[in-house]
Amino acid sequence: MSVQRDNATKPTLGQALLAPRSIALVGASDDVSKTSARPLQYLRRAGYEGTVYPINPRRTTVLGEAAWPSLSELPSVPDHAFILTPTEEAVEAAAECARLGVPVATILASGFSEGGAEGAKLVARLQALCAETGLRILGPSSLGAINLRRKTIITANAAFAEPDLPTGGIFVASHSGSLLGALISRGKARNVGFAGLVSVGNEINLSLGEICSATLDDPDITSYMLFLESIRHAQDIRAFAIEAAARGKPVVAYKLGRSAAAAELALSHTGALAGEDDIAAAFLADCGIARVFNFETLIETLPLLQRLPPRPTAARTKRVGVVTTTGGGAAMVVDEMSMRGIEVNKASDETFARLTKAGVAAHHERIIDLTLAGTRYDTMKAALDTMLSAPEFDLVVAVIGSSARFQPELAVKPVIDSASSAKPLVTFLVPDAPKALRMLTGAGVPNFRTPESCADAVSAALLRRMPTAQSKLRHNIAARATKQLDEIAAYGLLKKLGIEHAPAVAVDVHADTISLPFSYPVAVKLLSEKIAHKTEVGGVVLNVENEAQLKSAIQRIVGNVKASHPDLSVSQVLVQPMTSGLGELLLGYRVDPEAGPIVLLAAGGIFTEIYRDRSVRLAPVDLDTARDMISELSISRIFTGFRNKPLGDMDALARAIVSISQLAVDENVAVVDAEVNPLMINRVGEGVVAVDALVTLA
Amino acid sequence: MSVQRDNATKPTLGQALLAPRSIALVGASDDVSKTSARPLQYLRRAGYEGTVYPINPRRTTVLGEAAWPSLSELPSVPDHAFILTPTEEAVEAAAECARLGVPVATILASGFSEGGAEGAKLVARLQALCAETGLRILGPSSLGAINLRRKTIITANAAFAEPDLPTGGIFVASHSGSLLGALISRGKARNVGFAGLVSVGNEINLSLGEICSATLDDPDITSYMLFLESIRHAQDIRAFAIEAAARGKPVVAYKLGRSAAAAELALSHTGALAGEDDIAAAFLADCGIARVFNFETLIETLPLLQRLPPRPTAARTKRVGVVTTTGGGAAMVVDEMSMRGIEVNKASDETFARLTKAGVAAHHERIIDLTLAGTRYDTMKAALDTMLSAPEFDLVVAVIGSSARFQPELAVKPVIDSASSAKPLVTFLVPDAPKALRMLTGAGVPNFRTPESCADAVSAALLRRMPTAQSKLRHNIAARATKQLDEIAAYGLLKKLGIEHAPAVAVDVHADTISLPFSYPVAVKLLSEKIAHKTEVGGVVLNVENEAQLKSAIQRIVGNVKASHPDLSVSQVLVQPMTSGLGELLLGYRVDPEAGPIVLLAAGGIFTEIYRDRSVRLAPVDLDTARDMISELSISRIFTGFRNKPLGDMDALARAIVSISQLAVDENVAVVDAEVNPLMINRVGEGVVAVDALVTLA
Repeated sequence: MSVQRDNATKPTLGQALLAPRSIALVGASDDVSKTSARPLQYLRRAGYEGTVYPINPRRTTVLGEAAWPSLSELPSVPDHAFILTPTEEAVEAAAECARLGVPVATILASGFSEGGAEGAKLVARLQALCAETGLRILGPSSLGAINLRRKTIITANAAFAEPDLPTGGIFVASHSGSLLGALISRGKARNVGFAGLVSVGNEINLSLGEICSATLDDPDITSYMLFLESIRHAQDIRAFAIEAAARGKPVVAYKLGRSAAAAELALSHTGALAGEDDIAAAFLADCGIARVFNFETLIETLPLLQRLPPRPTAARTKRVGVVTTTGGGAAMVVDEMSMRGIEVNKASDETFARLTKAGVAAHHERIIDLTLAGTRYDTMKAALDTMLSAPEFDLVVAVIGSSARFQPELAVKPVIDSASSAKPLVTFLVPDAPKALRMLTGAGVPNFRTPESCADAVSAALLRRMPTAQSKLRHNIAARATKQLDEIAAYGLLKKLGIEHAPAVAVDVHADTISLPFSYPVAVKLLSEKIAHKTEVGGVVLNVENEAQLKSAIQRIVGNVKASHPDLSVSQVLVQPMTSGLGELLLGYRVDPEAGPIVLLAAGGIFTEIYRDRSVRLAPVDLDTARDMISELSISRIFTGFRNKPLGDMDALARAIVSISQLAVDENVAVVDAEVNPLMINRVGEGVVAVDALVTLA
Repeated sequence: MSVQRDNATKPTLGQALLAPRSIALVGASDDVSKTSARPLQYLRRAGYEGTVYPINPRRTTVLGEAAWPSLSELPSVPDHAFILTPTEEAVEAAAECARLGVPVATILASGFSEGGAEGAKLVARLQALCAETGLRILGPSSLGAINLRRKTIITANAAFAEPDLPTGGIFVASHSGSLLGALISRGKARNVGFAGLVSVGNEINLSLGEICSATLDDPDITSYMLFLESIRHAQDIRAFAIEAAARGKPVVAYKLGRSAAAAELALSHTGALAGEDDIAAAFLADCGIARVFNFETLIETLPLLQRLPPRPTAARTKRVGVVTTTGGGAAMVVDEMSMRGIEVNKASDETFARLTKAGVAAHHERIIDLTLAGTRYDTMKAALDTMLSAPEFDLVVAVIGSSARFQPELAVKPVIDSASSAKPLVTFLVPDAPKALRMLTGAGVPNFRTPESCADAVSAALLRRMPTAQSKLRHNIAARATKQLDEIAAYGLLKKLGIEHAPAVAVDVHADTISLPFSYPVAVKLLSEKIAHKTEVGGVVLNVENEAQLKSAIQRIVGNVKASHPDLSVSQVLVQPMTSGLGELLLGYRVDPEAGPIVLLAAGGIFTEIYRDRSVRLAPVDLDTARDMISELSISRIFTGFRNKPLGDMDALARAIVSISQLAVDENVAVVDAEVNPLMINRVGEGVVAVDALVTLA
């Protein structure tokens, strides 16, 4: 990185973190077998040009260099202190940094966020230090910060002992420090180079988002790679993502925790609560961060993101054309793409006619298979150019067979020559073909080594959108004391948003005569702001046929509630006509502690849980996004012509999704959680109706 | 391969196919730019020691060798003819092979199975030739057969132009010819060697299973790798798989067609109908063939299968222990394994105590994370040996971080030294570490380059079972003329199998008075062996309360049927009490045209289709397998304690699955299709009851 600086001034955060003029190594060891002896060796081996101060109270020299007894005895205040001492001593060193005005201290030791009650106390102490003095801490449990261009190798990670590390435009931020080594060695094997890499550790002070933001104006950094265990400090990530998008710098992320077991690991490693993965997915998508699911895709996707900027929200198509010399090889990519919802389309009749005219002999099928006979420069070039100029494709994949290994001039060269087209062209080489891969990487053509990685990257790229502007996020209200509305009040709130509810009247439990504004049969429900789950306390009676039954139902409810909640007095019940529609869904809004306000549409009843059939977005959403959510839900098929069933009012449903999502920007009311369950779906033109609702305010 | 042979005798199929004494190249070209010039070059380059007869009626020499004008003018009958001429001429050449008594002809041309009606005629002609003369045909559309040990490179695949192809114990059979090149080059990059490779083409005569079977007794072949577009000639595959298992030679398969789009490609390429993927999965599992889902796993899995033989059906556990030097790297594998249903388990208290005693410092969590500090030979060796001897694990995964790249003596060497344990040990190296990978491969230790491949292989290996003995499969009856049973007769058949049905009486549609052996309300259904879908013709009336309603319901049904089927006279209806249970499932049996008899358990109603919530096995099944099927179904949760609902009678359900699956071995009745839908699930002890049934006989 080429951070500009004026030697006379205090360094910026980015400078102190990644381009310090001087580095103190607190606890530097003279014993080369020790981890704490590594940073000095790596800095020297790399040729760092700034000043290094090894600090060791027990020695006058460390690895042949003069050592200093303590931070306070240094001749000048270092820009960055890398603290290599164990947990308790590391806190003391950080306190000394704070006293002296060291701008950034990186802490290697663990035992903080993952250290139970004792660790939590130490974290609080460090955070207090930062708040009081302005010290910024990277970590704890950070393996360091590396700037390859400036040879600032502030790390204990053995991977950085390697000479000739590949320099390039990628900046990496990782929750896992050890992964940095894997990324850099795998990058080297692919000719993929890095500008800088940071192991963010516990993020008790400097967050991953802040660290990335501090590098945004570095012209040498062209893209970002994130390895995430969970979403932490989401607002900082969003702020960074918005600015990265504004600068045309793509961000790709791999996130752990799709399974419950891995989510638990993230928890035990960092002390952070791992959220639900689909909420994290919605958050990343909303930030315009391309999420990949295969580890190798993380390393291979950025060239494609650089070719295909975030797509406008209006462009919802994911239409891919495939040209190949090997039907079997292409079928693997098609299989993987199709399973990710990418449409692999047949060329149109017009396009096929143009292919034929260009001399491309192939069958008019879902893929253009040139076969062995078409493994020639002219054939492949003509096929690619025709497909790339066809309006029915958003992206073209070239799958090259055995010739790629020793004769890249036949089918790989045309890929390189056609790749400057307006539409992105990516390639998967089926054989092991290192020379051709190097040619493609050198030419900036997105290339993949496995069908899974190719499909993963294409899917991530076609799904990427511009990040949504940061709204007044209400992350914190989830933790605040909450107040629940009773069902009538909840309906009132929904009504204001524009969501209809079933007719409902409150009836006094002691009423002598009850006249209803609608006819029997009716449903009778406990009306209380104290009890959220009415059914569980015997607070619901359905199919009540007449006034006598109604009175007896009311008494039954009163009795049931008294039995379970002796100190709660029930004064009113809610009465509604029995309603039925084509089916029921669950529509919800809530403020996630990390991701912020989300809107959720799910299959109703037990199916939400059993099939995890739900769609999540960050709120607010527009009508198109609401329609996407509907189409993502498997159960939606029953409302859209499944087995000749009548059509449901999907327009009204989409409007209801948009309406409830507006709670995210409503300045009059701070809703933590709003759930309409069930939302009754009626026939086309007859709307959707809330039949029960639960709302919790901050 | 070292196929033994006696020069005086007719070659066996295996010899003629893969170790011929002489090869005729029909249509060999003198123009090195032509595909048909390749086989002669490859045979010569490889140093094939047998006789090669180039056949070209227009030239006296081909590539400097004497050419023959036709097959019939050769001095002796070749063991193998590779026919390189176009479609029509290829048929003539095959006919000549048949006349002359050539044992095996391989046809390169396409235009047969994928050639529409014209192609089908040519296929029929070739098949007649084979039936009449005993000629065996490989292909058409075959890229050839390769025997690397004997340097018998009978192929036009450019990948075999390469010198120093890696020789080893793997035999490959592939539906895709072009894929052979990818497998061999990717194998070479991994030090994985091959004995032989065959492109099976359209399989119009020699099937993939037969080809593999012909190589079974070759001691140089130790394992099999299959690349499948679909399941074709399933009986041959099963026969091969059984014999391979008996010889301890593992079989691994990658199969295309998980998505609808790829299934369509398989169809258009080969003319074969691609079946449902989950049926293919059940078939492969029943054959003891390990199925992998990532392409690279196909190349990386065999060493693990050689370490872990097919597990006995009684061993249903899939418990994995993980030891690592990098928490982030291990978490990727854990995530992928957990999503595949592999249990990544915490060490027991006893095991953890043993680890501590052995000097392994780690937290007692789901994985044993030695961290950077534990990256030492002794620590890793002690951790691995302790975990491998712990009874709670079926397999141990070692995930090694950055040290693997340049210091394999630290954490990779102990993996090699511990890998001879009784329990399998596999490893994933997180960085790019070619030297360590070579060490591991050389030592026969299963090793993986991506977390996805590692998890894929572990899952495939732990799921692998001994193949089921070949039963009297009824593959053909699916195509035979069929007869449908009416509902009463269907119930009778189920009853004999031991499956209860709801009370049911047949009632004459003209009866004056109707007395039922059960009380109202009842359901009334059309009783006919002609109409399968009663509801669609208005043949079902539910909730009939009394005799008058019953008579009117009968008349309504009679009228409805007359309206839709004027020539069908309805004489009887079926009357049943209205029943309700805890829920409904679909239980089915059918004879799949390729896989044979299958049993199927699925969510009832629309959920089968919407959530594709079903479990398939080849029939017959035992009680344990039936229980596995129940647990695979998501909807089963509602019967096993979901949200305090009463428990369903899962024992009775398992017995019903076993019972219906017995149709596969019933010698008295040839059932093509039997579907109980719904099967009502009652409370524990109250059984399961068929409430409708449809049975079709051959």
